[in-house]
Formats: sequence, structure tokens, C-alpha cells
Amino acid sequence: MVNGIVLPIKKVFSLVDSKITVEIKDDQRKLQGRLVAVDEYLNIHMDDTIEYVNDQRGRSLGTVVIRGNNILSIQPNL
Amino acid sequence: MVNGIVLPIKKVFSLVDSKITVEIKDDQRKLQGRLVAVDEYLNIHMDDTIEYVNDQRGRSLGTVVIRGNNILSIQPNL
Amino acid sequence: MVNGIVLPIKKVFSLVDSKITVEIKDDQRKLQGRLVAVDEYLNIHMDDTIEYVNDQRGRSLGTVVIRGNNILSIQPNL
Amino acid sequence: MVNGIVLPIKKVFSLVDSKITVEIKDDQRKLQGRLVAVDEYLNIHMDDTIEYVNDQRGRSLGTVVIRGNNILSIQPNL
Amino acid sequence: MVNGIVLPIKKVFSLVDSKITVEIKDDQRKLQGRLVAVDEYLNIHMDDTIEYVNDQRGRSLGTVVIRGNNILSIQPNL
Amino acid sequence: MVNGIVLPIKKVFSLVDSKITVEIKDDQRKLQGRLVAVDEYLNIHMDDTIEYVNDQRGRSLGTVVIRGNNILSIQPNL
Repeated sequence: MVNGIVLPIKKVFSLVDSKITVEIKDDQRKLQGRLVAVDEYLNIHMDDTIEYVNDQRGRSLGTVVIRGNNILSIQPNL
Repeated sequence: MVNGIVLPIKKVFSLVDSKITVEIKDDQRKLQGRLVAVDEYLNIHMDDTIEYVNDQRGRSLGTVVIRGNNILSIQPNL
Repeated sequence: MVNGIVLPIKKVFSLVDSKITVEIKDDQRKLQGRLVAVDEYLNIHMDDTIEYVNDQRGRSLGTVVIRGNNILSIQPNL
Repeated sequence: MVNGIVLPIKKVFSLVDSKITVEIKDDQRKLQGRLVAVDEYLNIHMDDTIEYVNDQRGRSLGTVVIRGNNILSIQPNL
Repeated sequence: MVNGIVLPIKKVFSLVDSKITVEIKDDQRKLQGRLVAVDEYLNIHMDDTIEYVNDQRGRSLGTVVIRGNNILSIQPNL
Repeated sequence: MVNGIVLPIKKVFSLVDSKITVEIKDDQRKLQGRLVAVDEYLNIHMDDTIEYVNDQRGRSLGTVVIRGNNILSIQPNL
């Protein structure tokens, strides 16, 4: 790998159409769903979104747009 | 859908004139109302806005402009 | 209204010289006063500013410049 | 005054060399001192800075550079 | 060293492919792992990531993308 | 001094290679160390960094890169 060529955001772009877990900043919640779209600010459009509170499955949220600055981390689902 | 073409913000633009729910960061409140306008920062202009505190209907706020960075998520009303 | 033409910030520009209520992020306070000037970041210059704490009238603050990122919402006074 | 010409930041530029009070976001503290310099992000360079905690005079801090995004408000001292 | 030439971000670029510790803002957690990629916003792509809560080893997180604004600090592992 | 020419960030640039104290936002900690590099976002690269918790000397942290938006203030050490 050459430094500076593969940006962090490219990793997230590669996850479009697959399942991800989004951790919200200062919040007990994580959101799991299918990544529909993402932009350079890490704003995220998900569907089939399910809320997890302290790792317990919560509500089904469906379609959600999350503002990037309030996202702590994004992980691919295994 | 082609990756990288449909941005998350386009999803929000598509909701102009319809009812949305806006979740505020670090706050028990959600705001429901009609999306009048939105820009690239996710700043939002709503009217007929109603406050929900812990999912209980609260005050009618009427016209509100919300700054994008303090918005956690935006969802279409079903 | 045509989508994408009337930006949220235009709504705020239209409020210059009139009374507004500014809700501060993560704060029990709202500030009411006359909007003197606003810019694209929603930085705001108000005068005749009065602080409200939990909807109780507090101190008179006079002239205040508020940084946009710490503003949750802006509303016209009725 | 013509809308859009006198920006909020111009108000702060006009305070250079005079005494100001800076309110910190999510903090009981205010800082009073002489405004030495300010930029478009509202980053501030003050000297002769004195800390006030719940309106009680605290420590003398001397020269301080404060990052703009953590400033809630700036007021001229009367 | 000449001022203004070696930027802070260059220090982080130099850590790509090595082990780092990332401290999260307003959080008891630190994340340790291999830095895969970083961009100018300090967005970070790590793998082999392990969570530390109050300096106690926690869960293995694998691949994580962390948004830069929620990162307090980055340190090279010794 | 001419207004608008000496920016706040120039003050910080002038501190490169000298000892500074960095106050973290929403945190009891301050970090003291030698300023190695700083950029326009106030991202900071320090070495010989020592943590102070409520003004008590804490751990030695060595080399640290701190993201600018999470810095409340920067002061020269006397």
C-alpha cells in the first residue's frame, strides 16, 4: 500500500450496499443497516436500520440519514 | 444505484415539502414538521414543527431553522 | 417554491432587523433579541439581547456575537 | 444598515484592542481580557486575560489563544 | 526544523502501517491498532483494533473507520 | 499593531519549539510540552508531553498529535 493514496473514506465507499455498524458520538446507541450512500463528510444514508442500545436490539428505524460529524465510527458487519 | 452518484444529501433534498423527523444531538427531543428547505450542510428550515420529548408530543414551534451540525439524523415520516 | 433555491439561511437573512429567539446547544438558555447581522455559518450578531433560562426571563446582555456552530435553532418571534 | 454587508465577524473585528468577555461553550467560565487578534473562524488571541467562574473572579491567565469553535459568545465590555 | 513545513498531520502520515493509540473525545475509551490510512481531516482507518476502557483491555473491533473530529489525540505506540 | 494582519494563529506559530500548555475541551486535563508543529486548524504536534489533571502532574505522554477542534486554549508557558 502506498501512503496517502487509499484514504479512510475509500474504505467506507467500499462498504456501500453492505451491512455496517455506525457508532454514534456520546450515545449508548449503535445503528446497524445497509449503507446506501456516503459522501466526503461521512454523512450516511442507511436503510433497514436497526437501533442497538447497549448492544440490545431496539427499534427498527428504516431509512435514516445521519450527519457525519456526529458519527464516531463505522465498521463493516462480519 | 451507482455508488458515489446518489449522495446522502440527495435523499434529504427529496424530502422537501414532506414531513420529516429530526433527531437532535445529545438531546431527548425530536422535531417533526414539514421540510421547507435544506442546504449542503444539512441546515434545515422546517415549518409546522412539533417538539417530541421522549416520544411524547410537546410544544408547537412553528417555523424553525436548525443548524446542521447539531442534527444527529433525519428520517422521512411514514 | 422550487427546491434548492430558497436555502435555510435565506430564511434567517430575512429576519435581520426583527426579533428572534436563539436556542443554544446543550444549554437551558435561549437568547431573545434583535438580529443585527448573520453570515453563512449562522454566526449571529444580536442587540437588545435578553437571556431566558428555562423560559424565565434572566439578564439583559445587550450586544452579543454568537458562534454559529453552538446555535441549535433560530426562530422568528411571533 | 444594508443586510448582508455588515457581517457578525466585523462586529468582533471592531473590538480589537478593547476589552471583551468570551463565554466558553459548556463551561461555567468566562474569560475577560483585551482582544489582540481575531480571524474569520473567531479564533481569538487575548492578553491580560482573567478567568471568571460563575461570575467570581478567578485566575489571571495572561496571554491565551482560544479556538473559535469552543467559543459560545463574545461581548464588548461596558 | 523549519516552522510551518512539517505539519502535525505529517507526523500522523508517518505512522501509517505502525501501531497507534487513538484517544476518543469525551470517552473513557482508547483504541489501539494498526493505522491503515489517514486523511487531512484526521479521519482514520485502523485494523486489528482493540478497545481499552480505563486502560483495561476490552473488545477486539477489527476494522474501524473513525471520524477525525471525534478524535482527541493520536500517539505512536512505544 | 495593525488589525487583521496579526492573526491569532500567528501567535501560536511563534510558539513552535517552546513550551506550551494546551487546555482540552470538556476535560479536567491540560497537556504541557514542547510545540513541534501546528497548522491552520490548530492541530498540534507536541513532544515531551506531560498530562496535568486538576493541576496535578500526571503521566508522561511523550509524542502526541492533538486535533484542533478539541483544543479549548493554548498558552505559552512562563
